[in-house]
This record gives sequence, structure tokens and C-alpha cells, in this order.
Amino acid sequence: MHPLDTALALQALGPGRWRGAALPAWQNMVGPFGGITAAQALAAVMRDARRLGEPVALTVNFCAPLALGDFDIEVQPVRTNRSTQHWTVTVSQRGETVLTATAMTALRRPTFSAVEVAPPPAPPPAQVPPLPPLNTVEWLNRYTLRYVSGGLPAQWDGADVGDSRTVLWVQDAPPRPLDYAALTAMADVFYPRIWRRRAQRVPIGTVSLTVYYLADNARLARAQDRPLLGQATAQGYHAGYFDQSAQLWSEAGELLATTHQIVYFKE
Amino acid sequence: MHPLDTALALQALGPGRWRGAALPAWQNMVGPFGGITAAQALAAVMRDARRLGEPVALTVNFCAPLALGDFDIEVQPVRTNRSTQHWTVTVSQRGETVLTATAMTALRRPTFSAVEVAPPPAPPPAQVPPLPPLNTVEWLNRYTLRYVSGGLPAQWDGADVGDSRTVLWVQDAPPRPLDYAALTAMADVFYPRIWRRRAQRVPIGTVSLTVYYLADNARLARAQDRPLLGQATAQGYHAGYFDQSAQLWSEAGELLATTHQIVYFKE
Repeated sequence: MHPLDTALALQALGPGRWRGAALPAWQNMVGPFGGITAAQALAAVMRDARRLGEPVALTVNFCAPLALGDFDIEVQPVRTNRSTQHWTVTVSQRGETVLTATAMTALRRPTFSAVEVAPPPAPPPAQVPPLPPLNTVEWLNRYTLRYVSGGLPAQWDGADVGDSRTVLWVQDAPPRPLDYAALTAMADVFYPRIWRRRAQRVPIGTVSLTVYYLADNARLARAQDRPLLGQATAQGYHAGYFDQSAQLWSEAGELLATTHQIVYFKE
Repeated sequence: MHPLDTALALQALGPGRWRGAALPAWQNMVGPFGGITAAQALAAVMRDARRLGEPVALTVNFCAPLALGDFDIEVQPVRTNRSTQHWTVTVSQRGETVLTATAMTALRRPTFSAVEVAPPPAPPPAQVPPLPPLNTVEWLNRYTLRYVSGGLPAQWDGADVGDSRTVLWVQDAPPRPLDYAALTAMADVFYPRIWRRRAQRVPIGTVSLTVYYLADNARLARAQDRPLLGQATAQGYHAGYFDQSAQLWSEAGELLATTHQIVYFKE
């Protein structure tokens, strides 16, 4: 089974109640990769028989690091309208809340379609060398990451480079057809902007992550299992927190998702 | 009493339970201005005796239009750590959920502080004529809005202008010292980007709004009751939804908040 599908294989405990697990294959420095936990939270909504339509928005709040092993997910469709539905999600472990989320799903229909952010110039993925396997942070091995620009600083010398932009190709390893869960996880694939900005590995932790899905099922299908182009930047850093925004495009240049997060950092 | 404070004057019903009201003074086309409802949701957290620190992130999901009159707010501190706290918020009216929210508050400490988005060039507020009073949409009269660029289209002729940027000065009317509730409401002050992009007043509705606070109390205090500079753009429009991002700066150019929303539209 694909490592992403292993993580998404939730056990049904009852209406709106699921059991999942934080797995060694997805481990980050402290707890699992936030993207996989967000994808698991969304998966519990996606697999609910009451679900109406496809995801439009997801916000995940990381309340505390998850320990390796089982956790419980509780999802509730708090409001169902004619073509939209609002969900609340709680993930708990050992009786304590470790994550809260809200999601909105909707029946989507063809409308005016346009973008105002162009994908940044990038050579085709095959021409960009992938990051070599790492034995420090396991989740990074679940992706093939090809940095076009703004890779990890070559020297952690604390020089303020004044900018935090990163452009990369990202693909599940091994490749896997794109769905909303995979897209959600990829929204969190960018390393913390403050590391790039300051060339300094300060302690950080994502506090809240939002994903807006600008892809309907047809767009997702067109993206196939090919690499996505991603771009991430920060807007501001102040008093212990910075924000980080990113876009994900298909290889053919269709905008699939925009995503935002706010991240704790310690100077 | 200032109209914002009238809206924020919640009645305590018990621990984590408040009563507020959707007021005619803040009415939008269908239901109240989303910004005021978001501010009321945050106010219920801010006034809770259990609250730790200042707001860092708020996400508000608009599940259904609010009717004029009373509503109930329930807030819960689902996780309290040493210096951070996670909240869930539910607003209900006539027994139905009309809004869900999550908020994160934290004790903030001085750290590295920087920005990567500069305030757009703008003449001082006194040199930009304010929007005249309107008798169509009441909440607009709660603000002094001075469009620097990207005001409402002069002609609703359906021409796709290819861009949706708006730059404006916004100030409570009458002026009022800035606090987190006021800043939250102002995050929603930008008219829907699709109206600007397409010069067409299509039906819209904000589904989910996120605010990241990049101001601690000291920054808020420095902003006083002066106009804030705001800039809003969209990234993508597809299958019934578009996203919209904005920044708010103090008159002196300090970044106070970044904000994102996803908006339903009907072609």
C-alpha cells in the first residue's frame, strides 16, 4: 500500500468517529509532519457517508504535538445547506485535544474561471535534481522534492537574506494520483520561511494551517500523478509568529490550491 | 456608545456562553457584515476569564446568514499550553449553527521582526476623498473608506479587467482606538474581488475568513485611532469559489494583520 494510503486508512468506530495513527513513516522532528495530520483530518470528513460535495476550505489548528500511535477523530456536519456543508473536526489522543479543524465542502459547478497569480518560471521537473534521501527527518522521504530556487540555506550563518521565497516541484514518492488528501498534505511541504529568511534553524511550530481548494475533481484528475509546482513566501514576522503563504499548480500550470499558515518561532 | 462597542457588548449567560445581536447598524445585503460577526465571535474569546494572551489566529466559517436579533455564542478553551491556547467557537440562532470559528491566543514576546510585503504607495488619508454616505448598505456607513485605487467599478459593464487589486484607507466612523476586535472587522472591509475583476455584481458570500494578527498590543496602541492602509487581491477563481487575501498596515506603515477568505460566487 502507498505510504499516504496507509496513513489515510482510518478505522470506523461509529458515526463521525474514526481511529487513525501517527506513523513512523511520516515522523517530523517533534510529532508527525503537519501535512499528513491535516490530510487525515480531511480524510475523516471525506469518508463520512453524510458528506456533500468536495472540499472548498480546510483550517487545521495544531494544539499539541501528536505522539506516535493511535488517535481518535470526531467529525460533525454542523450545518448542511442545499449545496454547501460545514464540518467541525477534533482529534484527540490519550483523552486530550491535539488538533481542531473546520472544513467546508460544496457541490461545485462550472463558472467563470481565472487566476491572478502566474506559476513562477521553472524548468521541467526532470531537469531539476531531486533532494537526496535524508535520515534525519523521515517524512521528507515520502516526497520527491526538487528545489527550483530557495532551497535550504547552504550555510546556517544567520545572515538575513531579506526574502523567503521558495519554488519547488513536489511529488508523492512513489507517484500517486492526486486527490484532496494528497493535495492537503503537500500544502505543508514548504520548510519554515524563517529558516530561509534568516539562514538560522530556530525552533518553530505551525499553529494553524488553512487550505483553499481551487480545484474541482476534473482539475485534480488532470494533474494525474505528476509533480506539482509550489511557491511559498512569508509576509510578516513579529513577536513570536510569522505567516507563510503558498500556491500549488499542476505541471500543466493549473492552480490547484492556495494555502496559508501561521507559525510560532523562538528567536 | 460607539457602534462597534454596541455590537461587542455581549451579555454573559454563564461560563463560555454569551448573547449577542445582529444589529441594523451593521446590516449588509443578506445578514450582517461578516466582519462584525467575526469581531463578535472573537470578543467572546477576549472577554473569557480563562483567556491566555492575545489573538494570533482566527478562522470564522459563515454557515448561514444571520437574522437580525439575538444569537448565542459558545466558546471553549479546548487546549491550554504554557504560552498558547486554542479555542472553538459556535454561534447559533434559533437553535441552528450559523457560524463556527477557531481561535488561537498566545503570550507574545519580542523576537526578530520583519516584513516581506511593503505597504503600497498611497497619498496620506487626508488627501484621498472619503466614500460618500450610502443608503443601500448600512454597515458601510460604520467606516470612513478612502479608495486609493481599485474602487468599485464606475460602470458595471462586465469587462474582465484582468486584475482585482484594491488599495484603501479604512477608519472606524467615528474614529476609535484600534483593538483586536476592530482590526478583525476591518479584515473583511474589502468588497468581493470578483466584482472588481469582472465589473459585474454577481451574487457572492464569504464562506470562511482567516485573520493572522501580526500586531502585539504595543503595535495596536501605536496605530491609535488613525486610518489603516489596506490592500486586497485575489489569487484564483474556479468552479464557484475564489480566494481573496489582504494586508492591513498602520498609518505609520507597521503590518498589523494579514487575512484570507474564500468566497462563493454565482456566475
